[in-house]
Amino acid sequence: MTTRMRSEIGEQPAALRATLDALLPQVSDVGSLARDTRQVLFIARGTSDNAAVYGRYLVETHAGRLGTLAAPSVATTYRSRLDLSGVLAVAVSQSGKTEEIVETMTWAADCGARTLAITNGHGSPLAEAAEVALLTEAGDELAVPATKTYTTQLAALAVLGLGLGADVDPADLRRVPDEIERLIAVTEESPALAEIATELSRVPGAVVSGRGIAFGTALELALKLKEACYLHAMGLSYADLLHGPIAVVDRDTPAILVAADSGPTLPGTVALAQRVTGEGARAYTVGGGPELAAAGSLALPGPRLPEWVAPLALIVPGQLLTEALARTLGLDPDVPRGLNKVTQTGV
Amino acid sequence: MTTRMRSEIGEQPAALRATLDALLPQVSDVGSLARDTRQVLFIARGTSDNAAVYGRYLVETHAGRLGTLAAPSVATTYRSRLDLSGVLAVAVSQSGKTEEIVETMTWAADCGARTLAITNGHGSPLAEAAEVALLTEAGDELAVPATKTYTTQLAALAVLGLGLGADVDPADLRRVPDEIERLIAVTEESPALAEIATELSRVPGAVVSGRGIAFGTALELALKLKEACYLHAMGLSYADLLHGPIAVVDRDTPAILVAADSGPTLPGTVALAQRVTGEGARAYTVGGGPELAAAGSLALPGPRLPEWVAPLALIVPGQLLTEALARTLGLDPDVPRGLNKVTQTGV
Repeated sequence: MTTRMRSEIGEQPAALRATLDALLPQVSDVGSLARDTRQVLFIARGTSDNAAVYGRYLVETHAGRLGTLAAPSVATTYRSRLDLSGVLAVAVSQSGKTEEIVETMTWAADCGARTLAITNGHGSPLAEAAEVALLTEAGDELAVPATKTYTTQLAALAVLGLGLGADVDPADLRRVPDEIERLIAVTEESPALAEIATELSRVPGAVVSGRGIAFGTALELALKLKEACYLHAMGLSYADLLHGPIAVVDRDTPAILVAADSGPTLPGTVALAQRVTGEGARAYTVGGGPELAAAGSLALPGPRLPEWVAPLALIVPGQLLTEALARTLGLDPDVPRGLNKVTQTGV
Repeated sequence: MTTRMRSEIGEQPAALRATLDALLPQVSDVGSLARDTRQVLFIARGTSDNAAVYGRYLVETHAGRLGTLAAPSVATTYRSRLDLSGVLAVAVSQSGKTEEIVETMTWAADCGARTLAITNGHGSPLAEAAEVALLTEAGDELAVPATKTYTTQLAALAVLGLGLGADVDPADLRRVPDEIERLIAVTEESPALAEIATELSRVPGAVVSGRGIAFGTALELALKLKEACYLHAMGLSYADLLHGPIAVVDRDTPAILVAADSGPTLPGTVALAQRVTGEGARAYTVGGGPELAAAGSLALPGPRLPEWVAPLALIVPGQLLTEALARTLGLDPDVPRGLNKVTQTGV
């Protein structure tokens, strides 16, 4: 039987085409909204927070603006007052209904920020409260682990980057849906998918790492593996892994390393894979081209896309791995224990 | 035999007294440096990054300024150019020698930021390169897991907060050293210390959580447990834990929850402990007063200090737990595998 999660993974190319059709015409609206701002404050939780990490690196590396991930408790629990003049607050929420996110965005506006919402919740409180709303066209998502709502959020964040004047070619975005179709096919044909799932089913935990623009992908893959497979997946940046917890990587704790096929962070990721395997541990790689694949133990393919848009597709082999691992473990990936689709984080 | 880590835990009261003596007179220097800035950008890695998380919450909740944790790869790998006028860059490094941190602070200055260093490395490149240096007086630290260099960093960050005009009573800081002495004694007398260490020695992983001003403490405890005990310790914010990976908490995966004895985040932490134990999992608590202790399975005491300075002492029972767990596991906490004291994260 096909799980809902697997079906929704397959719906991503169509969801991304519809989202790009809807949002690319809004690039100039974003530019107008952001005109007198100099930095971006992202407001998000969970999967949306991992999307925001992509947004943060994108605006810092390509649009010359500082990006910050907000600490919502400062707004909702401490009720502090900050000077947010010159700040563009970007709230990211799948449902647009999580009260903490709506409240934090409203707080940011009260503190002087301009506001933009990225949500799949058309007509949601978040969309209504923002000055500009980038509404994703993911359609209904029924499996609890987010897939197409996440990748369409990334597309909206790429549109945000264009609105902020990122030095990239917008045409790259249009290549993403076809590339995901190809990637799903080649990943499912690859014997490595089942091999990695089998190996991961025998260990209690794993480290997931990636750097720069791919760091959000690593965090999102770690979250998926925790949510749907109850794996002790620790998402760590490349540098933080070297700085301390590389001690935790051993024969029982493999590393999963993600990277785009090109870009300045690729050599470091290759070196990390070599270090992990050199110490006798397993390193599974996702993307990073032939160089990263050769440095690891088992490799999943990545997208043939420029680094700045690679995350929109780079998570897809990870989604397929999560779904395969859940089934290997006899779990239903569609309905993990203890999770609801809309989470309220208030007391 | 007493480990070096345990000796250095005990040296913290003296190290903090010396650090406060040295740094409190610099409050006005910090104020002058920060006069034309409106926000803080923290530059750090590893344990220092966890200290910076405290600094971030402190300046946001008590000094009305936005705090951001820098992504060093934006400076050192992508070599991007950001507009950092109006930004106070605060670099935190135990040794003051990690090239990536020095390079990122220099980059921030080139981008228009004012610069301040917090380091135990007197005469180090970081101290020399900053406009103002807050030099901690931790003395030599020989065990690889940082203890007194971390808590003295927190003291320096508290001094930073005072320089930024935080609405707190500076006299609270002087209470910290005595309170740590008391806390070490009562923690070691508590049967819960060995009981929790024994229980943790039988599980592959744990979730460590805390909220707001205590969040950095949770991240630091998770890092210590990963570094010295190879535990799959996942540091998660309260909200992120509710938003997703609470699925990972089960009979084999306990939660460790840290909180100050008072403050607006305490009720949420108590509710989280109740939820974890209500689902049949173990919740070990550190601090949070009698209310949090009653909500969990086993409790370590916390400091009797106002929330804003509590993190300077709240990590101490966690340090003792890390040291006890390492010994329970037959490991040497002083020299974990794969770690050096000064880490270079470049390729």
